[in-house]
Amino acid sequence: MTAPLALGTVHGVGLGPGDPELMSVRADRLIRSARHLAYFRKAGRAGRARRMVDGMLRNDVAEFAMDYPVTTEIPFTDPAYTDLLSGFYAECTRHLCDLAATGEDIVVLCEGDPFFYGSFMHLHARLGGRVPVCVVPGITGMSGAWTASDLPISWGDDVLTVVTATLGEEELVRRIRDTDALVVMKIGRHLPKLRRAVAAAGRTEAAWLIEYAAMPEQRVIRLCEAGDTAPYFAILLIHGQGRRP
Amino acid sequence: MTAPLALGTVHGVGLGPGDPELMSVRADRLIRSARHLAYFRKAGRAGRARRMVDGMLRNDVAEFAMDYPVTTEIPFTDPAYTDLLSGFYAECTRHLCDLAATGEDIVVLCEGDPFFYGSFMHLHARLGGRVPVCVVPGITGMSGAWTASDLPISWGDDVLTVVTATLGEEELVRRIRDTDALVVMKIGRHLPKLRRAVAAAGRTEAAWLIEYAAMPEQRVIRLCEAGDTAPYFAILLIHGQGRRP
Repeated sequence: MTAPLALGTVHGVGLGPGDPELMSVRADRLIRSARHLAYFRKAGRAGRARRMVDGMLRNDVAEFAMDYPVTTEIPFTDPAYTDLLSGFYAECTRHLCDLAATGEDIVVLCEGDPFFYGSFMHLHARLGGRVPVCVVPGITGMSGAWTASDLPISWGDDVLTVVTATLGEEELVRRIRDTDALVVMKIGRHLPKLRRAVAAAGRTEAAWLIEYAAMPEQRVIRLCEAGDTAPYFAILLIHGQGRRP
Repeated sequence: MTAPLALGTVHGVGLGPGDPELMSVRADRLIRSARHLAYFRKAGRAGRARRMVDGMLRNDVAEFAMDYPVTTEIPFTDPAYTDLLSGFYAECTRHLCDLAATGEDIVVLCEGDPFFYGSFMHLHARLGGRVPVCVVPGITGMSGAWTASDLPISWGDDVLTVVTATLGEEELVRRIRDTDALVVMKIGRHLPKLRRAVAAAGRTEAAWLIEYAAMPEQRVIRLCEAGDTAPYFAILLIHGQGRRP
């Protein structure tokens, strides 16, 4: 009788905001030694997470690309969106569990920090109790953004509010009015609405748009200089002005 | 005639939440090659930032310990507190500028992320325009905390609010009621007030206290299991429960 094979571990590894030198020493070590690598990408694209680790991988690495069945083609309020994604995450989870059952460890690449608005969270919720899961935190995209802006985001007892631009316009106005420091994620085609909300809250002069923070295309502009759309990797910041000796 | 000496650069380097393997590859490289190292610490202590880099430093490194003249002995609302700290930061800035003027680069160790409630911000504001300054972001203490809790902090269009426990009790209640996900920093002796505020907002069951995230002493407990004080390195979390397929 042979001993039962130990299950492999699924590592959800934060890559940080984009510059490969900003991944953690642990992430760097896990990625370089990985035998199995998984990552999300938009179908038909190379995938930004995958491109970040170019040149770091073992020659014999086995790759598992998880192609989103949908990104912004269907509104997320449509039940079809939920069904498609739910089935997709279940299928990815099954594949990772099958691999782990053969005793293999798998590294799942996660842009930013895995537990901060990350896709890996949908796998994590499904993997729990089935295979060992280990999460390596990462530098968030918003840290990359405020570093690019060359100004601190929060001082003393500043309140920092993080919202997504997918919220309704009135709710955005209310949130922007009621905070010292602000981070807005998931901007893209919501930029005109966000711009109106910032203006209604009287804070246009203080608002910065950071595109592709910590990536080669990085661009830091005032909100009033922005066009009508922003890339997915765009973050709006209003810096806190709190107590400081 | 000799060319004027190029100014050295002051690097504000984020160390992440505590585990040395969670610093970035860039931070690791800068710290290992540093000829001049500066760090804040409570007077009479070794300093947690300094202890994190034990065993990483060059033999010929020159160290500049910046001992806070005051931490919690005087309330921060007292003008004496502001005067003491302001003079202290000015003096540290002068020392760093003098060193940089000799062409030497200096690495300043920063716990967490330098631009997120960090002491380095007070140097950064004073160094600007005098010497080149470069900031390396780090994994925040709050990322360390939610990773330790083994649950994502924010999903879909969750609003995340970050507050300090130094706020008044009514303001805390209002903020806790009006957010999906919550992070509370700077808890310490404010824990009883924070506990009352969480209870008044009806969210005690959802609140977790994470002490010393990503450090050897890490402890994850429910708020209702906590005592009357928390260490400086304690963070309270309420996880978002937002949209997920």
